Amino acid sequence: MAMKYMHGGDIYTNQIDYDFSVNINPLGMPLKSIAAAHEGIAMAGRYPDYRCTMLKSAIAEKIAVDEEDIILGNGAAELIYALCHAVKPANALTVAPTFQEYEEAVNASGGSVKYYMLCGEDEFDIGNNILEHITDDTDIFFLCNPNNPTGRLINHDLLQDIIGKCEETDTILCVDESFLPFVRNGSALSVIGKLGISRGSILVIRSFTKIYGMPGLRLGYMVSNDRELLNRIRCQIQPWNVSIPAQMAGREALYDDEYIEKTLDMTEIERIYLNEGFKNVRIKKVYNGSANFMFFLADEMLYDDLYEQGFMIRDCSNMKGLCEGYYRIGIRSHSENQMLVRALKRIENKEP
Amino acid sequence: MAMKYMHGGDIYTNQIDYDFSVNINPLGMPLKSIAAAHEGIAMAGRYPDYRCTMLKSAIAEKIAVDEEDIILGNGAAELIYALCHAVKPANALTVAPTFQEYEEAVNASGGSVKYYMLCGEDEFDIGNNILEHITDDTDIFFLCNPNNPTGRLINHDLLQDIIGKCEETDTILCVDESFLPFVRNGSALSVIGKLGISRGSILVIRSFTKIYGMPGLRLGYMVSNDRELLNRIRCQIQPWNVSIPAQMAGREALYDDEYIEKTLDMTEIERIYLNEGFKNVRIKKVYNGSANFMFFLADEMLYDDLYEQGFMIRDCSNMKGLCEGYYRIGIRSHSENQMLVRALKRIENKEP
Repeated sequence: MAMKYMHGGDIYTNQIDYDFSVNINPLGMPLKSIAAAHEGIAMAGRYPDYRCTMLKSAIAEKIAVDEEDIILGNGAAELIYALCHAVKPANALTVAPTFQEYEEAVNASGGSVKYYMLCGEDEFDIGNNILEHITDDTDIFFLCNPNNPTGRLINHDLLQDIIGKCEETDTILCVDESFLPFVRNGSALSVIGKLGISRGSILVIRSFTKIYGMPGLRLGYMVSNDRELLNRIRCQIQPWNVSIPAQMAGREALYDDEYIEKTLDMTEIERIYLNEGFKNVRIKKVYNGSANFMFFLADEMLYDDLYEQGFMIRDCSNMKGLCEGYYRIGIRSHSENQMLVRALKRIENKEP
Repeated sequence: MAMKYMHGGDIYTNQIDYDFSVNINPLGMPLKSIAAAHEGIAMAGRYPDYRCTMLKSAIAEKIAVDEEDIILGNGAAELIYALCHAVKPANALTVAPTFQEYEEAVNASGGSVKYYMLCGEDEFDIGNNILEHITDDTDIFFLCNPNNPTGRLINHDLLQDIIGKCEETDTILCVDESFLPFVRNGSALSVIGKLGISRGSILVIRSFTKIYGMPGLRLGYMVSNDRELLNRIRCQIQPWNVSIPAQMAGREALYDDEYIEKTLDMTEIERIYLNEGFKNVRIKKVYNGSANFMFFLADEMLYDDLYEQGFMIRDCSNMKGLCEGYYRIGIRSHSENQMLVRALKRIENKEP
C-alpha cells in the first residue's frame, strides 16, 4: 500500500517508476542553470551573498520592478512563513481547495484561516461573492493564480475588484503566481503590473521551483509595493537564506527565453494529448486548467491501481474542500505521458 | 574605504585577495562531499526529502542519539529563528560579545535579550556569577561554546551548574556548538552527552558550515531531549527547507574522519605559527582560544591598513560588549597565514 495523503513528490518513501504527483517543469533545469549550479558548488566555501545582488538585479530587470521591491527565499515556501511571522494575521482568508502551506504558515504564527469554498459545479472558479468575504477583519488574503490543484485562472475583472476591496478593508493581498509562467501571455494576467497603481499592500509570490524545474535547489521570491512590509519580512529570516547554487542557477534561468517557449509549447501539446487519453478510461471529468498540471475526478481506487503499475499521482482527497476521487497530475514529457495513458487503458481493461 | 561592520565573509562588496573575516574550515569541503553535492545538482528536478532520512540517520549514528531528537536546517541560523518563533521568549539571556543572530532572532519574535557582559581582564570567560543571571524570568539562555568571537571554552563544571540552574528555573538551554568540532576531544565537552540525563529542555546547535567548509550550501542541525519542543520548531519551518545538494554533501562529510584529523592538526599547527607571527607587530594581546579562529586586540587602524594590502579581517567593534580595536581572524591555510603575517610586518615597518 502506498503512502499517500502527504506532500506531492514524496518519492523517498514510495517505490515508483513515474512521478506524476509533482507539478514541475519536466524539461528539467535549463542547461545553463545546471552549469551555474555546478559552479556554485565550487564556490560553496564562501558564504552566499546575503543581498543576492546579481540574482535580484536580473529579476528586477526581467519583471520591470525596482530591486528594493524584491525579497528572495529558500523556496517560495520560506517566504510564506516569513510573511506570516511578520504580519501575524489573526484572520486570514483563502479559498479551498488550494495550496496548503498558506494555512500551515498562518497557524504557525498563531492565526486562523477562513475558507471561501470553491465548488465543482462552478469548475472550482471563484465567484463575485468572494468580495463579501473580504472584510475589515480580514488581515490577509492568499490567492493562488492559477490555483493549485485546480489549474483555474481567476477572472481578470474580478481580480481587479479584489484589489479594490482589499484596499478598502486594509487587507494585505498575497497573490501566489508560482504557476503563471506556464500560462501563455501570463504576464498580462500578473498582479505585478498593478503594484505601482494600488494604494493597498500587495505581495506577489513567484517560484523558480516549478517553471525552471529546480525544486531540489530551493528558490523563490516575493515582489511588493510595500517596502516597509518587505523589511519586516526580511527581519524574520536569517541573512544567508539562499544558497550559492540556487542564486547562480536562478540567475542563468532568467535569461533563457527559449526554454520558456519550449515549455509552453510542450505543455499545450501534451495537455491536448492527455485530454484525449483521459477519454474512455476511469476518469469522469477533467477540469480545464491553465497551468502545467491537470485536475480531474475519477474513482477512489485510481491512486492504488496506478501505484501498482509504478505511477504516483497526487491524491487530493486530503485537501480541504475536496473528497475522495479528486486527483492532480503534473503534465510530463510525451513519453512519460504516453506511459500514463497506457497504464490507464490497462487498468480500464482489467477484469473487474 | 572598506565596507566593514556587517557580517563576516561579505566578499561581494569588497575587493580583496584574502578573506580572514570568516571562520570556516580552510581545507574546503571534503572531496566526497563535493562529489555528492554535484550529484545533488543532477537530482535537483526532484523535491528534497523533507524528512532528510538518510542525512538524519547518519547524524544520529555519528553523535549517538535517536533520529527523532534531530531537526535539520537551512544552515543553523534558520533553526535559531525557528526556535524563537516557536518559543517566543519574552526574556532571553546570552553573553556579550557573542554571535549576533541570537539577539536578531529573539527580537524578530518579539522578545528582548539581556546580556551577561564578558570582560577582557577575565579573558572574556564566563564567571560563576552567570548563575545569578539565570532566573525564573529567563525563558531561554543562548550559550556559544566555544564562544564566537573569543574562541573561549566554558569551564566544564560551570556548564554542569548552568544545566542545573536552567532545570531549576525552567529555562531552555540552547548551546551553540558550531565550533566545538574544531576542539580536539571536543565531544567530551559537548552537552549532547547530557541530553539523556537532564530533566530540563536542552537544545544543541551544530553547523556543517564551519567544520566542513560549506557555508554556501547551508546546512545545520539541532539536537534536543525535548521532542515536543522540536515538533513546535518544525511547525515554524516549511517542509522542504534543506536542499538536495546540502543533504547529500552533509551525509558524505560525516563519514570523513580523516578530514577532521587533518583539520585539527592544521588548526593546532597554524595557531602556533600565527601566535609567533603576531609578536612584535601592532597586535597588543591575543586571547587564547580553542576554535579555528583567533581573537585579539590591536589598534583601530589595523582593519583599514590590512584592507589596503588586500586582506579582510573581522572588525568586532560593532559587537555588543566590544569596542574599537578588537578583531577576529579565521585560521587559514599555511600559505595564506604566511601572507597575513608578512602583511602585518609590512604595516609594522611602514613610516608612521
